[in-house]
Amino acid sequence: MISSLPKNFDLSKAVEKDKQLINEYLDKYLELRQPRIIWESMRYTALSSGKRLRAVLALESARVCGGDIKNVLSAACALEMLHAQSLIHDDLPCMDDDDYRRGKPSNHKVYGEATAVLAGDALLAYAPQVIINNTPDSVSKDILFRVLEEFLHVAGPMGIVGGQALDILSENKTIIAQEFDYIIIHKTGKLFKFAMRAGALLSEAPGEKLDVLSNYGEKIGYAFQIADDILDVAGTLQELGKTPGKDCKSGKNTYVSFYGLEKSRQDLENLAQSARKILMDSGLDSPLLVGIAGYIVEKTAK
Amino acid sequence: MISSLPKNFDLSKAVEKDKQLINEYLDKYLELRQPRIIWESMRYTALSSGKRLRAVLALESARVCGGDIKNVLSAACALEMLHAQSLIHDDLPCMDDDDYRRGKPSNHKVYGEATAVLAGDALLAYAPQVIINNTPDSVSKDILFRVLEEFLHVAGPMGIVGGQALDILSENKTIIAQEFDYIIIHKTGKLFKFAMRAGALLSEAPGEKLDVLSNYGEKIGYAFQIADDILDVAGTLQELGKTPGKDCKSGKNTYVSFYGLEKSRQDLENLAQSARKILMDSGLDSPLLVGIAGYIVEKTAK
Repeated sequence: MISSLPKNFDLSKAVEKDKQLINEYLDKYLELRQPRIIWESMRYTALSSGKRLRAVLALESARVCGGDIKNVLSAACALEMLHAQSLIHDDLPCMDDDDYRRGKPSNHKVYGEATAVLAGDALLAYAPQVIINNTPDSVSKDILFRVLEEFLHVAGPMGIVGGQALDILSENKTIIAQEFDYIIIHKTGKLFKFAMRAGALLSEAPGEKLDVLSNYGEKIGYAFQIADDILDVAGTLQELGKTPGKDCKSGKNTYVSFYGLEKSRQDLENLAQSARKILMDSGLDSPLLVGIAGYIVEKTAK
Repeated sequence: MISSLPKNFDLSKAVEKDKQLINEYLDKYLELRQPRIIWESMRYTALSSGKRLRAVLALESARVCGGDIKNVLSAACALEMLHAQSLIHDDLPCMDDDDYRRGKPSNHKVYGEATAVLAGDALLAYAPQVIINNTPDSVSKDILFRVLEEFLHVAGPMGIVGGQALDILSENKTIIAQEFDYIIIHKTGKLFKFAMRAGALLSEAPGEKLDVLSNYGEKIGYAFQIADDILDVAGTLQELGKTPGKDCKSGKNTYVSFYGLEKSRQDLENLAQSARKILMDSGLDSPLLVGIAGYIVEKTAK
């Protein structure tokens, strides 16, 4: 049995340097071009405050594999762009109809719906272009193709889009556990998993390490969604940066509405423990990776 | 001076075989998966009636370069998926708000706005995945990267999205000729240009042929938009498959509203002649490529 997770892990402090690096590269990749309004709208969400957790995970995954983070920077930024794209489109009135995101008015509230749809499309097409044009030549073409293919898979109908579609379709409906599982894995889990895989693949990690890190990514992605759903019933607008209780009110299936608060907390704890154990058993337990597993539990504990 | 364009060129007949081939591959690539509603919605627009002109051009470009069309099929289908994506998102109420497309209710009228947004996103991410996963191994990785990068460029903020953004922003506004040019080139021209480039690149055509075919693609893409704008004022719902006079009424800048009907017809004729001349001068004047230049003019002549 694993001992308790690290208490008082200060994620903000631990990821500060990586976050700054990612923001610097995002700022560079998303430099203002014409038509200005589209790039401004892309930047508004992609560069808004946020922990850049997915990107940081990609960098750290490379580090624990002994890789060079320079090889991973463009894929890490592309992942943040993809995340921003899904936030912009999810917030649209015809989707989740959310007015706030990361503590600011959501993209369409600032730029209008048409520009928000286009800015999402723009990020979705531009992100893989950033990977192609900015990954160092030292990375083999075969690996780059694999990373690109996995990225597009996560972005598309077999990834985020599939998850979001089922999520919207099942509002105010009773779904079975298997369907609910599908939503979490596809909307959230696959992005975290890809972050870990991208870092490992671009570092030419052997298959066993890739498997361990994929597995860790899957688990913390799932845990992250449970934590988000717990905060949706327990958090404030200020803490969440988005409207609390919104998912619950809109008839969305959340982990808490599905399994109750107690089981949610227990499952979250178990997942984080399990994620940590996977790392320790394979010697890939860097303080940051272990800390992030702990942080996801910690942030729901009030 | 070039003699008159071929009269009574029957495009439908000339492209029938290629169109069937493309439809067969689109049907295969877009086989129904889960969540079913997303794939149905993607198929609804991507497989709806249409000439598959962009895909046919990609195949024919390969043929005139002495290439194997097997190498181009996935890129040609990806191009049709991208075209379908732009139609779905353009028709949304927050964009051009169009209820009809290709003679049928537009995607969001059948599947709802949320699914239409997601189906567009799905096509956008899935299309380049189709290129990666289905282009034969005999194509060099360097060429495949170039094709992918150009595809994403056309799809994103420096391509279609940029054109559509400026188009929407300039509704009911006076814009200068340079801006209007930007819209046509980015919304329509770049897709036709890419079709020709993909066929040539995937056939390992030398630079001069690539340039000629790019140039031809640019010109007929531009011509195609002028023809579309002429038909918007002259066509019927049945002929157009979409609401006639719609662009004009909604305050959109069209070639006809910008330059008048007479100059529109003249410029269209000149462009088609010029496209044909480029081909003849370089010996790449296949009946189909010459015929398509003629067809674009013919279809506006009543």
